[in-house]
Amino acid sequence: MAARPSDVGILAIELYTPSTYLDQTELEVFDKVARGKYLYGLGQLRLSVFGDREDVNSISLTVLHNLLVKNNINPKQVGRLEVGTETLLDKSKSTKTVLMNLFKASGNMDVEGVTSLNACFGGVQALYNTVAWIESSAWDGRLGVVVLADIAVYPKGPARATNGGGAVALLIGANAPLVLESQRTSYVDDVYDFYKPDPSSEYPQLSGSYSIECYLTALSDCYTRLAARNGSKRVEEFADFFCFHTPYYKMVKRAFNRLVHLDVLRHPELHGKLGEMAKERGLLFTDRNHYSVLDRYTEPLWHLRGEPATTLGKTLGNLYSGALPASLLSLICDTSVDLLGKRVLMFSYGSGLAASMFVLYVKPDSANFIAQMRRNNPIRAILQARIKLNPEEFTRRMTKRERDYGRKNYQPEDPVAEIQPGAFYLAKVDEKWRRFYEQKAPGAPRL
Amino acid sequence: MAARPSDVGILAIELYTPSTYLDQTELEVFDKVARGKYLYGLGQLRLSVFGDREDVNSISLTVLHNLLVKNNINPKQVGRLEVGTETLLDKSKSTKTVLMNLFKASGNMDVEGVTSLNACFGGVQALYNTVAWIESSAWDGRLGVVVLADIAVYPKGPARATNGGGAVALLIGANAPLVLESQRTSYVDDVYDFYKPDPSSEYPQLSGSYSIECYLTALSDCYTRLAARNGSKRVEEFADFFCFHTPYYKMVKRAFNRLVHLDVLRHPELHGKLGEMAKERGLLFTDRNHYSVLDRYTEPLWHLRGEPATTLGKTLGNLYSGALPASLLSLICDTSVDLLGKRVLMFSYGSGLAASMFVLYVKPDSANFIAQMRRNNPIRAILQARIKLNPEEFTRRMTKRERDYGRKNYQPEDPVAEIQPGAFYLAKVDEKWRRFYEQKAPGAPRL
Repeated sequence: MAARPSDVGILAIELYTPSTYLDQTELEVFDKVARGKYLYGLGQLRLSVFGDREDVNSISLTVLHNLLVKNNINPKQVGRLEVGTETLLDKSKSTKTVLMNLFKASGNMDVEGVTSLNACFGGVQALYNTVAWIESSAWDGRLGVVVLADIAVYPKGPARATNGGGAVALLIGANAPLVLESQRTSYVDDVYDFYKPDPSSEYPQLSGSYSIECYLTALSDCYTRLAARNGSKRVEEFADFFCFHTPYYKMVKRAFNRLVHLDVLRHPELHGKLGEMAKERGLLFTDRNHYSVLDRYTEPLWHLRGEPATTLGKTLGNLYSGALPASLLSLICDTSVDLLGKRVLMFSYGSGLAASMFVLYVKPDSANFIAQMRRNNPIRAILQARIKLNPEEFTRRMTKRERDYGRKNYQPEDPVAEIQPGAFYLAKVDEKWRRFYEQKAPGAPRL
Repeated sequence: MAARPSDVGILAIELYTPSTYLDQTELEVFDKVARGKYLYGLGQLRLSVFGDREDVNSISLTVLHNLLVKNNINPKQVGRLEVGTETLLDKSKSTKTVLMNLFKASGNMDVEGVTSLNACFGGVQALYNTVAWIESSAWDGRLGVVVLADIAVYPKGPARATNGGGAVALLIGANAPLVLESQRTSYVDDVYDFYKPDPSSEYPQLSGSYSIECYLTALSDCYTRLAARNGSKRVEEFADFFCFHTPYYKMVKRAFNRLVHLDVLRHPELHGKLGEMAKERGLLFTDRNHYSVLDRYTEPLWHLRGEPATTLGKTLGNLYSGALPASLLSLICDTSVDLLGKRVLMFSYGSGLAASMFVLYVKPDSANFIAQMRRNNPIRAILQARIKLNPEEFTRRMTKRERDYGRKNYQPEDPVAEIQPGAFYLAKVDEKWRRFYEQKAPGAPRL
């Protein structure tokens, strides 16, 4: 019986998002849908747009490179690197192997970990795996890294407003400022809510309303069991802040509402008039009127505890695997809330489905960590520096993307000037589908 | 600082292979190649053939079901289940979610783990992840299961002789008879030796000779560093038995030869005349003549230490993810070697590439475990009960498989009578690519 290291968790977070974006109100006009359908209906402001120079390998290279450089990590210090993604460029070879290019110069090729695959959930499983490695007898004292990267694309139509993408890298180690608490609950089931079975297309098969139902079922199960263990009667006793997997803003608000909904059913006596209504009429808040009552009831609490974690989701679109850590990063870097000594509830959902709920504890002496993360990820500045594309250019890129899906002998055409200085980009795909990447000089100009 | 459970490792092993096979000598005649090209050139006797009723989901369901039933495990006792595969039926939804159908009746949907993806290596990463989970603070006392399943298929031509497939399930827990030692070495690099980038095809892109070179480079690196830590001067000091990832028999013999080759270079004084030759002429055993000398030199040791682990590989073909545990199963179930108190070297290789070397220690009091595994996996009887297909029928199935790759609205046609009693099989793929499985009654007749 040997002892485990303590306080294993997140030492650093790094975000990467492309330079170009689309405005949701402009997409509403272009799509000839009701004004506000995307802006208020989904609650989304903008979405990230990729050109053909970037793919899951390149954005993973970029975010990992930036994580190592900004946190002064020598690649030799890393003993485990895992990728969570559902944007597969190959059915066999993992993105992880491509990331080894950042390790070659150091001579360190002994880096465990591959790709964890299940829709948007793979990254959280990768996080669990990496934390467990550090707590295991196989740990050799080195650091772990988890890269969560995806490009979310949908066919022409309303689902396209939920396009998005980006990459987040997490540095994992012992004595961390953000500690992963050991208590957690998971819920896994065999459903076809969102999946990618069509070999000829990058797009998913999707049933939006069924997927919402699956998300809420998994959320309810995980919360009910974890709250019972935790002994909390109300969501605000359970945790101080809330980060959810974020397909779009309104889904996250709905998730928060569901937690309060469950609280009201468990302890109506704590919820005044709403609790009385629920007790008398057995309210389930499923019809539109009752849901509106619930939505208004949760508003003040949501504003304090949930809303602060939503900036990146609203402006980058769906990051799939990266959506949950991007929510955490919004909370840390884009708000003035006091996180020291606080607990953050994290809920990850991956269609198909695999879901899990856990808690991050922010140690009281983490002020330097928070300041450093804000310097490393100047979210407002990053968002303001982006280049707006018009819906016509966005549509042209999507059409071209459809046409070129899976092609060999492929030469990307979008301007390298658009790529951020220091970022990696796809140079070409050769006649054997081998992919070649280059790094833009860190000091090079951008459009 | 909390204490870890001890002796985490393998509690049970279960193999599943289809009922039908092809004889390599018949394939040689059919392919009009030199007699012995497959039988002696590759060292392969037979290969497993799948019909259209079985896919990676169905064989994973079958092997998991059999593992649980034969070892008297209630699904509630399982807290983690991970799948290693490179035979993806979906780019997002994992086979793991399909396996949850075996948990529904028990009400236990809290089962962590997804798919670990990197060619043939994913399953070993899954094993590492599961062992680490049991040693971590998140462990809740339940068992882990790793399913390693693949179907290996190649286009018409010589590579098709290395077709194969099957599934292995490992039950993982503390106080195990087969203990995973904590010391291990890994080697990961970015290469294109074997990969699956073509969306329209199930077949890999493959450079056979380059892949052998990559395999041997990874093997050499892992062995040299692990032997240095271990302090052993000769391979027979290092471990008592040797299991390798097995694309085909001759590759495994070549891998064993490479270990001895490295021994000779490290300590020529221990290898008599061969050592003197190596010292004087700086032999690398790369040309054909020198390699033959080495091959004969290693023969007696190979016969005792390596050969016993090769039965399943030679008769089932390449199992990809399952190849390494099938090698272990050959050693345990098909030989009369004394394993008690012995150490087994395990080397996993996944193209792209990710590779790792570790050691399993068989505890001295494991006689009951070994007897039970032999009862659960009566290898000779399983192999003898198989149905031989002729090369024409094999080719018909492969051609049909090519045509139907990725289809929706698909009705399998091969006879259910061929399916083993109690096994799962694909009933249909509907118009939305949803896959439906049925279980053949355990007492049902077979062809």
